[in-house]
Amino acid sequence: MSSDITSTTGRPTIARFGAVNPVFVCVISYTATSEISGLTVAGANPALIKYTSPADAEFLYYGKCKCIDAVPATPDGKPTPALITRTALQKGGIPKFVVDAGAKIKPLIPFASFGLEPGRNISEEKAMDVFAVEQALHHGELVGNELARLSDLVVIGESIPGGTTTALAVLTALGINAKFKVSSSMPDNPHTLKNKVVESALSRNGVKPGSMKSPVDAVAMFGDPMIPSVAGIARGALTAGGKVMLAGGTQMAAVLQVLKLLGTRIHELCIGTTSYVVNDKTSDLTGLANEISAGVPILSCDLHLDESVKPGLRAFSQGYVKEGVGAGGASLAAMLKSNRLTGRKLMKAVEKEYELSIERHG
Amino acid sequence: MSSDITSTTGRPTIARFGAVNPVFVCVISYTATSEISGLTVAGANPALIKYTSPADAEFLYYGKCKCIDAVPATPDGKPTPALITRTALQKGGIPKFVVDAGAKIKPLIPFASFGLEPGRNISEEKAMDVFAVEQALHHGELVGNELARLSDLVVIGESIPGGTTTALAVLTALGINAKFKVSSSMPDNPHTLKNKVVESALSRNGVKPGSMKSPVDAVAMFGDPMIPSVAGIARGALTAGGKVMLAGGTQMAAVLQVLKLLGTRIHELCIGTTSYVVNDKTSDLTGLANEISAGVPILSCDLHLDESVKPGLRAFSQGYVKEGVGAGGASLAAMLKSNRLTGRKLMKAVEKEYELSIERHG
Repeated sequence: MSSDITSTTGRPTIARFGAVNPVFVCVISYTATSEISGLTVAGANPALIKYTSPADAEFLYYGKCKCIDAVPATPDGKPTPALITRTALQKGGIPKFVVDAGAKIKPLIPFASFGLEPGRNISEEKAMDVFAVEQALHHGELVGNELARLSDLVVIGESIPGGTTTALAVLTALGINAKFKVSSSMPDNPHTLKNKVVESALSRNGVKPGSMKSPVDAVAMFGDPMIPSVAGIARGALTAGGKVMLAGGTQMAAVLQVLKLLGTRIHELCIGTTSYVVNDKTSDLTGLANEISAGVPILSCDLHLDESVKPGLRAFSQGYVKEGVGAGGASLAAMLKSNRLTGRKLMKAVEKEYELSIERHG
Repeated sequence: MSSDITSTTGRPTIARFGAVNPVFVCVISYTATSEISGLTVAGANPALIKYTSPADAEFLYYGKCKCIDAVPATPDGKPTPALITRTALQKGGIPKFVVDAGAKIKPLIPFASFGLEPGRNISEEKAMDVFAVEQALHHGELVGNELARLSDLVVIGESIPGGTTTALAVLTALGINAKFKVSSSMPDNPHTLKNKVVESALSRNGVKPGSMKSPVDAVAMFGDPMIPSVAGIARGALTAGGKVMLAGGTQMAAVLQVLKLLGTRIHELCIGTTSYVVNDKTSDLTGLANEISAGVPILSCDLHLDESVKPGLRAFSQGYVKEGVGAGGASLAAMLKSNRLTGRKLMKAVEKEYELSIERHG
């Protein structure tokens, strides 16, 4: 097993999540909370934010985007982590499915729909209707249940710009102290802005930190459609006896809290991410996850992007982007499936895919 | 292996399509051709035809329908074959996925969408745009490719009222003599009406039988969105090295012809259906399939519905319904996966499910 894989709970855990035929599910979504200025850089400019998640999904299939004529990138040209996800899935021969959980723009690929509207801006109104949260959970469970019968590890990633702020809001409402712990796609994590958005959303609704007990109500008020959709898929797969990897950073802490409060047995669940998230000084995924469920394994992979010849990829190791579109989890799944795949080999393949993607867009 | 399974190419073929982890895909669709009076009984009355395929898909998940408050049935109360499909998938522990290929009403379940419009009435206009046919093929290939990596047998069923008429039209345009060979959900197969609809559609477009060479153009002019969607999924799975069972009656002959003309290698493909279709005196699936591709295996299963205590199920053996929603293929997959499952055992389970479904609808 590659020494580029680390687990917060030791190496035996890594073997436990080894998989013969993992499957990757990418849940794309939207929250209008992302339109708050300064909150996210997932999109070259504010008007493009809504294209980020469908473009990520298209990139997984085609290595180029169809709904926009460019690789999704930050304003200063850091490429989408979908680049890593696509490469890892290809290297690992891992099948993928895309779930639309309220994306504002629909990708030009076949995707499963949960019939959800985009999430609303929590600084202005309720994020979702309660019935929509229930539908996301329910549809997710149905899909997760079927996938677990075909695959021994269901890896679930997400693409939703602005999602760490809604995750922070849900965690706060449900009594987890997540302030200054959620991650960011920028090295200068805008904690103050996120905290202000969350505090004002809670106080506008008369909610004190920790005063909510129902995960459904908390997600409806302060969350986004990604959270219950991923939770539903995970719950369905776990209930069917499958293993689940939540592939992402601190947003997955909100999913974990929802799963826990729904009474889901999470023994066969782990979080899978990049070393850049786990080692991030501006956030604390390990602390967050352990506060929710002590001992939950966090697997992470070192992709040696600091050694890349591509400045855009090196940036991932310097606090930019760091994770997204399940990049860390997809890399872990590929490395767990194919023992010969190391972080460095994957990095070299990502570099090639980066060049190809630029060529594809001409 | 159950003696209730028969193959037109002998018993070794049956073993070849044996599967450890089959997956079932149900493609739901619509053609306005079904609105021609007298063409189909798939729907309790004409206004309900558009609910038939989404209701079938819902039935697979819930054992009841959500978009209509009844089990889909013919005007005189013959139940939907989804009853058999659901029971077989449950007995076999076979995972299922629903693909929406232009259903007019969307089912209240999670489903993958190929982004297609319902098919138009071929007696009045072109069935589909060429780009829509290409999109169905393309999206199908992407999905089939992923499924074949998870499963050793991709079983593809369909639910589209009126589909035998569009199948007849496509086959005729592409040079297959299918007149009086396509099946029907009624014992008194309305061949004359079907032939008239097809002949007038062809002559209105200046097309002589056999004069078309392009399967894409033929489907666009005379087909329905199910045909290229199923063909695409099959093609994707076959190209990825998987095995495919086209689960249905004579409509699958049109899919087979499209696959053949696209140059698909179909060595690992079979048609799977009920004995009621294969033995039907008013149609000729075996003749049709062999005219398209000599020696293509047709597997069929005897569910002993003639011995059922339920008149609605006995009717299936008396020329009514006979097949649909991949009932035959799902039954075959369940019997191939679990050697102890016989046609009679499955029939008894279907009877129980029938009772339960009536209870569920109160």
